[in-house]
Amino acid sequence: MKSKINRSFQYKILCVAMMLFGSGQLAIAANWQTLPTKAPEPADNPTTSEKVKLGQILFLDPRLSSTGTVSCNSCHNVMAGGEDNRPFAAGVHGQVGGRSAPTVWNSAFSAVQFWDGRAPSLEEQAKGPVTNPIEMGMKSWDDVVKRLKAIPGYPELFSAAFSADKDPVTRDNAAKAIAAYERTLITPNSAYDKYVKGDKSALTEQQVSGMNTFAEVGCAGCHSGAAFNGNGAFMKFPVHRNGMFEAKYKLSKDPGRFEVTKNDADKSMFKVPTLRNIALTAPYFHNGSVNKLSAAVVVMAKMQLGQSLKQQQVKDIVAFLEALTGEFPAQTMPRLPGTPGTTFPYVQ
Amino acid sequence: MKSKINRSFQYKILCVAMMLFGSGQLAIAANWQTLPTKAPEPADNPTTSEKVKLGQILFLDPRLSSTGTVSCNSCHNVMAGGEDNRPFAAGVHGQVGGRSAPTVWNSAFSAVQFWDGRAPSLEEQAKGPVTNPIEMGMKSWDDVVKRLKAIPGYPELFSAAFSADKDPVTRDNAAKAIAAYERTLITPNSAYDKYVKGDKSALTEQQVSGMNTFAEVGCAGCHSGAAFNGNGAFMKFPVHRNGMFEAKYKLSKDPGRFEVTKNDADKSMFKVPTLRNIALTAPYFHNGSVNKLSAAVVVMAKMQLGQSLKQQQVKDIVAFLEALTGEFPAQTMPRLPGTPGTTFPYVQ
Repeated sequence: MKSKINRSFQYKILCVAMMLFGSGQLAIAANWQTLPTKAPEPADNPTTSEKVKLGQILFLDPRLSSTGTVSCNSCHNVMAGGEDNRPFAAGVHGQVGGRSAPTVWNSAFSAVQFWDGRAPSLEEQAKGPVTNPIEMGMKSWDDVVKRLKAIPGYPELFSAAFSADKDPVTRDNAAKAIAAYERTLITPNSAYDKYVKGDKSALTEQQVSGMNTFAEVGCAGCHSGAAFNGNGAFMKFPVHRNGMFEAKYKLSKDPGRFEVTKNDADKSMFKVPTLRNIALTAPYFHNGSVNKLSAAVVVMAKMQLGQSLKQQQVKDIVAFLEALTGEFPAQTMPRLPGTPGTTFPYVQ
Repeated sequence: MKSKINRSFQYKILCVAMMLFGSGQLAIAANWQTLPTKAPEPADNPTTSEKVKLGQILFLDPRLSSTGTVSCNSCHNVMAGGEDNRPFAAGVHGQVGGRSAPTVWNSAFSAVQFWDGRAPSLEEQAKGPVTNPIEMGMKSWDDVVKRLKAIPGYPELFSAAFSADKDPVTRDNAAKAIAAYERTLITPNSAYDKYVKGDKSALTEQQVSGMNTFAEVGCAGCHSGAAFNGNGAFMKFPVHRNGMFEAKYKLSKDPGRFEVTKNDADKSMFKVPTLRNIALTAPYFHNGSVNKLSAAVVVMAKMQLGQSLKQQQVKDIVAFLEALTGEFPAQTMPRLPGTPGTTFPYVQ
């Protein structure tokens, strides 16, 4: 992890150095990257259409929750910004969690998952919420697998996706399928991407100004890479203390990655979130405490970079961030396999 | 309403009379109807593609609930059997209602909506759950309209769908759009439909036996018409008293339509539910008290028709009912219009 922070820091220095070359209406020569249209795949889980199909169905199936009311999509809505636009996600029985749901869009471009980075892969992430008592509330994955096996249609879907397995309906295969589906949730061709690829008319003058300000003030130091997420880096948040913001937004209350490692150095360390489609994923930060993107920009500049932005700079950066909203691939609604003539004894 | 019951009763007599002509592997000559591929439309709300598009988005949008977590689709899942497979639906804050969610599929073929028939149209139905405090929990439709107007994209969608209106974002237009979308939720070409249209191989021998038994024992008396729902008739349920079933399923606890009219004659009166896709909509009855379709058939025969079915008859009827599962039209997932850079203060 330490090496990641160091890399991120080195990158920041690099960006600052490169800024010296920029000027005018053109974006400064930072390391601007476009979003790939294909996500990297782990060697043990290549993306196949059969897995993606199964994964999409599992992702949208509320029967993966104890009550039959909460699916992955409930908090990570793929018809919207890939999350729920709420400060805290709501799970079974209306229970409310302690962190804001991160977007599932482009999550394939992060080396770590969850705000505290406790999952090193999408596969590991997918296993978590299902048995979290305040999220999807299943008692165990054994119970989930039992349900999936009892739904005619699922065993066939698993067999098709994992044809080499004798007993394919397993927790690990469910997670692999969900992860494979998530690797297709990519939003390329934002105005920013078009601009970087050479279409200079794709961004407005204000957006180019915002892009330059974004790099100049140092945002790109952490929010680097194609997904503007430091490729899975961790960062302290907040870095600087600010009594007014702290009173208002309680940003230091959550110990972040410390909860996972119990290492003092990890206090207030969080995964750097992607800025792709950031305009669609209000409210902001790990605790969803800030409703407006403009306010989030002000807070970040102040608490991470020690800078008070001018109002025009904030507006420009927001305009630039809006240019990071990409094209969402069209999806066909799946049919969830049924249980003819019966149902599960869901927790009411 | 009385005339409806009378019509339903007359129809029953007709069916019984027609049964005399049937025998063998062929279905008896009852008034078997296939499902139309187009739903009837009210004169003041013709179905247009613009309305259907808007209606689908509204149907799937959880921002129509106070918490931002419950959409129409949460309880009427169009990726499944059009409901939630739970005894009682779950609304905001995990609150649980008192009746089982009816399927939205083919609801366009019912003259009344809700178990107690309190809505005379899909348009009227659509207005109910949004402001029900235990369903979607919005304080008022004024608040809903305010939200819709604050979401860039919605005013344009409403304008396109209701181009003659100066101020198109209204409760009535939202309900009209949702109803127009629901009129497209039709599942034709079930094995039963194919059989009735002439493909005698579409049903198994057992399913044809079940079809005949269904007519012979009198099920078709109430479950008549193309949607097997008496076209929106009301019927007393249960008709006969049965101590054992009452103790087990509490079927008489709900006063049904009496709650709406306060008329003693309406005690225990319910809308006759469709049997289309009935295999996918367990658990059964207004209180979702019966988990298995086979048990539901036993209860219905006993409590509505005073008949104790033989085990083989039950199996045959269930096999026939499974033949009522139709073809679900492919749907593209809509994009829910976003609120760039901001969100609503949802109730947590």
